[in-house]
Amino acid sequence: MCGIFAYLNYRVPRTRKEIFDTLVKGLQRLEYRGYDSAGVGVDGPRKNDNGDNVNICLIKKRGKVKALEEELYKNDSIDLDIELDTHFGIAHTRWATHGEPNAVNCHPHRSDKNNEFVVIHNGIITNYKELRKYLEGAFALVFKSIHFPGEAIATRRGSPLLIGVRSKYELSMEHIPIQYNSTGHFIEGIQQRNFRNRVDSTVALHSVSDRKAVEFYFASDASAIIEHTNKVIYLQDDDIAAVAEGKLSLHRMSRCAGEDPNRAIQTLQMELQQIMKGNFKAFMQKEIFEQPESVFNTMRGRICFDTNTVVLGGLKDHLKEIRRCRRLILIGCGTSFHAGVATRQILEELTELPVMVELASDFLDRITPVFRDDVCFFISQSGETADTLMALRYCQGRGALTVGVTNTVGSSISRETDCGVHINAGPEIGVASTKAYTSQFVALTMFGLMMSEDRISLQKRRLEIINGMRMLPGLIKEVLTLDDQIRSIANELYQQRSLLVMGRGYNYATCMEGALKIKEITYMHSEGILAGELKHGPLALIDKHMPVIMIIMKDACYTKCHNALQQVTARQGRPIILCCQDDPEITKNAYKTIELPQTVDCLQGILSVIPLQLMSFHLAVLRGYDVDCPRNLAKSVTVE
Amino acid sequence: MCGIFAYLNYRVPRTRKEIFDTLVKGLQRLEYRGYDSAGVGVDGPRKNDNGDNVNICLIKKRGKVKALEEELYKNDSIDLDIELDTHFGIAHTRWATHGEPNAVNCHPHRSDKNNEFVVIHNGIITNYKELRKYLEGAFALVFKSIHFPGEAIATRRGSPLLIGVRSKYELSMEHIPIQYNSTGHFIEGIQQRNFRNRVDSTVALHSVSDRKAVEFYFASDASAIIEHTNKVIYLQDDDIAAVAEGKLSLHRMSRCAGEDPNRAIQTLQMELQQIMKGNFKAFMQKEIFEQPESVFNTMRGRICFDTNTVVLGGLKDHLKEIRRCRRLILIGCGTSFHAGVATRQILEELTELPVMVELASDFLDRITPVFRDDVCFFISQSGETADTLMALRYCQGRGALTVGVTNTVGSSISRETDCGVHINAGPEIGVASTKAYTSQFVALTMFGLMMSEDRISLQKRRLEIINGMRMLPGLIKEVLTLDDQIRSIANELYQQRSLLVMGRGYNYATCMEGALKIKEITYMHSEGILAGELKHGPLALIDKHMPVIMIIMKDACYTKCHNALQQVTARQGRPIILCCQDDPEITKNAYKTIELPQTVDCLQGILSVIPLQLMSFHLAVLRGYDVDCPRNLAKSVTVE
Repeated sequence: MCGIFAYLNYRVPRTRKEIFDTLVKGLQRLEYRGYDSAGVGVDGPRKNDNGDNVNICLIKKRGKVKALEEELYKNDSIDLDIELDTHFGIAHTRWATHGEPNAVNCHPHRSDKNNEFVVIHNGIITNYKELRKYLEGAFALVFKSIHFPGEAIATRRGSPLLIGVRSKYELSMEHIPIQYNSTGHFIEGIQQRNFRNRVDSTVALHSVSDRKAVEFYFASDASAIIEHTNKVIYLQDDDIAAVAEGKLSLHRMSRCAGEDPNRAIQTLQMELQQIMKGNFKAFMQKEIFEQPESVFNTMRGRICFDTNTVVLGGLKDHLKEIRRCRRLILIGCGTSFHAGVATRQILEELTELPVMVELASDFLDRITPVFRDDVCFFISQSGETADTLMALRYCQGRGALTVGVTNTVGSSISRETDCGVHINAGPEIGVASTKAYTSQFVALTMFGLMMSEDRISLQKRRLEIINGMRMLPGLIKEVLTLDDQIRSIANELYQQRSLLVMGRGYNYATCMEGALKIKEITYMHSEGILAGELKHGPLALIDKHMPVIMIIMKDACYTKCHNALQQVTARQGRPIILCCQDDPEITKNAYKTIELPQTVDCLQGILSVIPLQLMSFHLAVLRGYDVDCPRNLAKSVTVE
Repeated sequence: MCGIFAYLNYRVPRTRKEIFDTLVKGLQRLEYRGYDSAGVGVDGPRKNDNGDNVNICLIKKRGKVKALEEELYKNDSIDLDIELDTHFGIAHTRWATHGEPNAVNCHPHRSDKNNEFVVIHNGIITNYKELRKYLEGAFALVFKSIHFPGEAIATRRGSPLLIGVRSKYELSMEHIPIQYNSTGHFIEGIQQRNFRNRVDSTVALHSVSDRKAVEFYFASDASAIIEHTNKVIYLQDDDIAAVAEGKLSLHRMSRCAGEDPNRAIQTLQMELQQIMKGNFKAFMQKEIFEQPESVFNTMRGRICFDTNTVVLGGLKDHLKEIRRCRRLILIGCGTSFHAGVATRQILEELTELPVMVELASDFLDRITPVFRDDVCFFISQSGETADTLMALRYCQGRGALTVGVTNTVGSSISRETDCGVHINAGPEIGVASTKAYTSQFVALTMFGLMMSEDRISLQKRRLEIINGMRMLPGLIKEVLTLDDQIRSIANELYQQRSLLVMGRGYNYATCMEGALKIKEITYMHSEGILAGELKHGPLALIDKHMPVIMIIMKDACYTKCHNALQQVTARQGRPIILCCQDDPEITKNAYKTIELPQTVDCLQGILSVIPLQLMSFHLAVLRGYDVDCPRNLAKSVTVE
């Protein structure tokens, strides 16, 4: 959580207005990571006799980035048109963990009232009480100081940080070598102000001819950088990046055996249009409607529908080892956890292995026994989810084989796992995850298909599923045409306070995921309930006033779900039912139905979750909430 | 669900009023099993020339047994004072599954408008649509017919049924032999009315001298019988019991290899006072306050505090086999499932085995892989929970070792498992389970202690836990003194619609169980939330209006829970916190605290669930609901 963005222009003249615009646009791209308060730190107008700036101006505002932007331009004391040849500005959008979201707690933070050193921070310092004794916790930090005008220092541990580089000159190298300080005097080095000398002696980012114009962008993720440049360096934990005299250098305290002594300069494949809203009201809505393509992209080049083969490139070298394991453990948080629940049964069927699905935080709390013959999957859209990342390190320490399932190349989880699957759903901006869920679902199912390719008894089932997958994008399009009908149902429901979503079997996960969507963006108290548990308590909630959504598909649970329906209607409940097309038996017991095309039982959850995604969207809009910025939440949960 | 009761007096003269009183009292004892409607079937006044009754009178009433009772005595057409030398009356209290709870759907049901055959049924016929083709499903049935005055037929499959016998003469035998009909003409036999002849030639229940006065009681469980007699016979699936001429005979269609050809006449150990409410307002309240004793009874004779040894008699012969297993699977529904979640971590620690906890219905829906080296635990207070019982049979079919954890000797689960633990909590009448939960918790922890007795590295931990268990009853008493404080907090909360209960680690189960209690009896939408998942969605629900209860104990999760607390208070949440005594750091961030004595981390959940049990009780009373009869629910869920 929290987004940090910084911009350094070296010998690239920019007006202060242009600098503000760049900082504000950067924050807007990162706003999904938090929007409790925002702030910037830039050079102020005061100069010394050498013409260097000697003060830093901090402008902060509670609320969204929009509020900060208004604040910036109504500030009369700052000359917006002045042109700055070289300048370093930092910016921050906050998601409150400790301390209320007010102006005092807003970033940048400062060392003293003269703003001698200012810093933006993304992370959580869990031992804030013992802080004076020893600093630990998770962080990404960018520093600016009046003592080092035009220079930048950045570092990270636990929270993500990358640096974009833009120059009209061609970059002279494909990676940046790390400088190690084996004497351990690095910190003192900075304090003695010999740091600049050190940098001068190191490899420059671009051609050796000095003093070339260049711009640097520091950000929590690539979406804030892509509109400026596609050349980026991902920092790793404990890397320290410094920019001085327009040159970027990377430093570490000491070198460990086997460690890569370079950081690659990577080229982002992301397109700007991918992170724009287009004609949709919200990113979330856009992402819901992208699912025919995103699901197809997850399968692209991996399923060959002519030969009915499935190959996940990132796993194929480890497949023998995975097949020898005793147990699969799927680990995630929130929606990613639900993707594990959704595919558990088909994985149990196709792999014939016990499959456990674990919430990362609970898995860690329990100090769960993990063994060398376990294979552990870490599911995270961002690849940076703190609890999931900690669980990964925990399992590695116990010798298990680790598999990442992420949507973000270069993320911590994708780097640190032994192997993995990139779900390839494209950037997801909406805080409430939608297309990442369906792509995780498809990716995990493909893993099951890959595991079972050599089993004769499973061939018929595999063919049925592969054929089902081929049809999926078309069927998703069909489901999306129900949007108007779902909006009109939302219109009847939006003033309710509670909402229950019930189902079982393959659609138990759908209930939990649908209820989570509604919770996240409508703030209605919705809960996913296993229909089989109804009689063990939740049935007490049912009367004619409690809104109920039930999922009753034509699968092995159909009769049992029908029993649950009878129990609900016997208590005067008026259920809205997601069911298959042409099911008069259900229709006659329903208050309303939403009729879906039928697919293979184990893929039906991909189709049935979409009406609930749409429902949550319409409910939130009708209740007057900002769909992409739900209160209290942020996209990428990089703190525990 | 549903309770059935029937009473046959043979040569024991009873007025019709006495018969009504017996039937009504029997139903009242079973009322926790359902209270949507109730009905009785007794002989009517019309007689033929031989003096035999030729009509059956059905009296039914929607609502509770109380309503039926009023109906019985305002019916002018029935002579209450007439004395009947031999009579068979049947009675039923219904929990609606299919069809609304109205007078038409009320039992007894009848064959025709002349009431020639009438029947009471407990169970659910899932294939009701195909009924005419082939009858299956779960049932316990008792039949009465005008064609067989003074005779009774009863049978069961899936739903429980037992028969009590009372006579002033001593019973002549300790078991009843089963009569097998190997020719398969049993049904025709009845139809040809040679059934009575068959009975005459069989073993009589008591001494051979014929025509002795005797009374028979048929009921869904022992609590309806204990006030009349302590001699009972538990029917098994597909047994058919017949009473004619005051003699009870048992029949089966055919005999399977290894089957016991007798049914024992057992003596109930239950005392009548155990099932009376005493000075409490409700059975549930009484059972909450019984927990110092019930928890002690679970440990009694099993933990030797002098030698620090734990012996569970029902498991000790299977311990070697259990120690060799690869995995433990704990299976239950509702509260029993939560007992599994609550003890999962300590079982993982003490057994060093992977432990899975499964909701029985989901476990069956998923057709979960189970292997010969798995040990499966089936947790059920009644020992009759339909889904848990089905899961037991499923696991047996796959060769796993099965272990029962029940509160009911002679129940289906305790009979059908390979071995087991009786939790010995005493009868639980309140529909919302309380003392069974804490006793299940203790029993499962004792199992962990027994498994680890030979591990040197675990001895310190074992001693700590055993010592903690010794102190438990005293600490529970201390927690119960908080009752007044909890009532005053309930007084502030009872008009709310929603309530969140948050915690993690050892207290995650406490949250789920506390929320379930509140759901069951207050009908408030309460939900247990893993505090580690807060940032992945549920935090959106938090504002100053949403009531929140948090559990923050001094254990390994303390700091993480404190972070969650900061997140809640940063959003203006006003949490009521269950915490340890003397924790100023928590107190200053809380809206209210409920301070509990501290015990070993893995036992803390036993203490922390009690305030939530009390809270649910007071909330329900303040909201004006009947605590022991929550709407839509029944105690023992004997249907899927």
